[in-house]
Amino acid sequence: MAAHTGTVLISEVGPRDGLQALKRTMPTEAKINWIKALAAAGLTEIEVGSFVSPKLLPQMADCAQVVAAAREIPGLTVLALAPNLKGAAAAFDAGVHKVSLPVSVSESHSKANINRTTEQAIAAIADIKALRDGLPDDTPGAKAGIEIGLSTAFGCTIEGPVPEDRVIRMAALAIEMGAEAVGLSDTTGYGNPAQVGRLFRRLIAEIGLDRVGGAHFHNTRGQGLANVIAALEQGVTTFDASQAGLGGCPYAPGATGNLVTEDLVWMLESMGLDTGVDIERLIGAREVLLAGLPGETLYGHVADAGLPLGFEYANQARPAA
Amino acid sequence: MAAHTGTVLISEVGPRDGLQALKRTMPTEAKINWIKALAAAGLTEIEVGSFVSPKLLPQMADCAQVVAAAREIPGLTVLALAPNLKGAAAAFDAGVHKVSLPVSVSESHSKANINRTTEQAIAAIADIKALRDGLPDDTPGAKAGIEIGLSTAFGCTIEGPVPEDRVIRMAALAIEMGAEAVGLSDTTGYGNPAQVGRLFRRLIAEIGLDRVGGAHFHNTRGQGLANVIAALEQGVTTFDASQAGLGGCPYAPGATGNLVTEDLVWMLESMGLDTGVDIERLIGAREVLLAGLPGETLYGHVADAGLPLGFEYANQARPAA
Repeated sequence: MAAHTGTVLISEVGPRDGLQALKRTMPTEAKINWIKALAAAGLTEIEVGSFVSPKLLPQMADCAQVVAAAREIPGLTVLALAPNLKGAAAAFDAGVHKVSLPVSVSESHSKANINRTTEQAIAAIADIKALRDGLPDDTPGAKAGIEIGLSTAFGCTIEGPVPEDRVIRMAALAIEMGAEAVGLSDTTGYGNPAQVGRLFRRLIAEIGLDRVGGAHFHNTRGQGLANVIAALEQGVTTFDASQAGLGGCPYAPGATGNLVTEDLVWMLESMGLDTGVDIERLIGAREVLLAGLPGETLYGHVADAGLPLGFEYANQARPAA
Repeated sequence: MAAHTGTVLISEVGPRDGLQALKRTMPTEAKINWIKALAAAGLTEIEVGSFVSPKLLPQMADCAQVVAAAREIPGLTVLALAPNLKGAAAAFDAGVHKVSLPVSVSESHSKANINRTTEQAIAAIADIKALRDGLPDDTPGAKAGIEIGLSTAFGCTIEGPVPEDRVIRMAALAIEMGAEAVGLSDTTGYGNPAQVGRLFRRLIAEIGLDRVGGAHFHNTRGQGLANVIAALEQGVTTFDASQAGLGGCPYAPGATGNLVTEDLVWMLESMGLDTGVDIERLIGAREVLLAGLPGETLYGHVADAGLPLGFEYANQARPAA
């Protein structure tokens, strides 16, 4: 294994990927409190919601309000997901710093998730870029970045294995259409470390490391952190995770469980990689989450096991929390 | 990441490490049925019990009977743990193929676990080797291997961090005293992948890969499979795991949770590494386990999530289960 030094960016997706997977809706104020608690623990990038039809996902109906509040948190990069041009327009109006567009590699998942063909989803990137580039300067999200997340990049619960050549071809097309970054998502929890290593190596060769948006792993088969190790080896330094492992894709049956932020932070810090996150404050944010979702089941190991005796953060110079 | 091909040996420790951690005792016949089911799923090495005082661990009082029954299973390598000379003598008499001797790197854990100093534990290896070498040829375990597991190699819940130089020095001493193999155990679930990579690299350089007994990881902080990836990278090809994650060390507080065999097999097979284990039959063995321990809590992801659509074993030529 290569020596690991430097910093890793953790992109917290709980307020989007976690909350959209639940049947009940967290009240707007509770969402904002939770996002503030996550940011106070040191997370600098949070995907705060999704600009989708409230008929499909009523849990996300207050996304514009949540974005506006999150923008007030100093130093926080505010992301939101948008499945289409209409959603992206709303995201720019609300003032996201980055919009995340899911594009499925699998045709069947694309239809199920956003009711479009993969070709339509790829073509929409150019429309969204044109929209963004034509926004008046005083639109809050006029300078927003456009990032693609390639869903089902490691396999599909409807189609099974997904050809690796197809993943790389779609990544190249997304960049051609105007995306500024492309990440790979293990939407279904099928990915294994050998495959993760191969695909990120090819992705980096194809589009360049500076345009690799990050890795989104699930822990469906317990393999989430192992996949992080394989991606780190290739040079990937941005990882999605969800507090308490909330979430998973509602349109990928059986694909429960995002990577747990608490466990990811502990592993990276133990390895000597600086995440900027205070683990005890992060565990404390679970209480704020529970205040908005009483009785919700929380996952993860580190919150139960605690920090090892003598644990030290990677960056010894970090200010006390 | 290096290309992964070849085979990996999974050493199932559930009947020893799993059962000794429980308050209740599995009946002897149920243990034997469970071991048979594990072997029928393709596991070729099983640590079936521990030759310790029945006053300390009454769950293990029938170890000689279990070893005798396990020896009847064709192709199975039968291991048992022994904490001292008396236990090793009983193990040889019962006919183990290999005896596993735990030697703590941490002085405090050594006292708590086997009531000896680390120096005494190392010195005992020579006595055990002398005993084995002097056994009459008709002793069932006359040809048994002697393998050391260095406990708390990645940290101690009483002392905190453990110096890496000390781990390597103790491994070298163990070989000098006559051990045929030395493995590293993350008894406390403190280990992280960077540390695992460093320590196995040094261990291999010190004693040679052919004398590395294997890696024993816990999943206390969710990091078990990530640590496997780091050890694989160094060339390690033997891993301990426990069906359903049963176990953890009773003398290392809070260090619950062995690596889950089912999840490990799935990850390795997905990566193209042949374990020889049939995952569905292995999951089926959980029922046999539960027959002996009604209502016991089982851990692991793959048993819940099932195999991915289109999953293929590494060795396509393997006979159907």
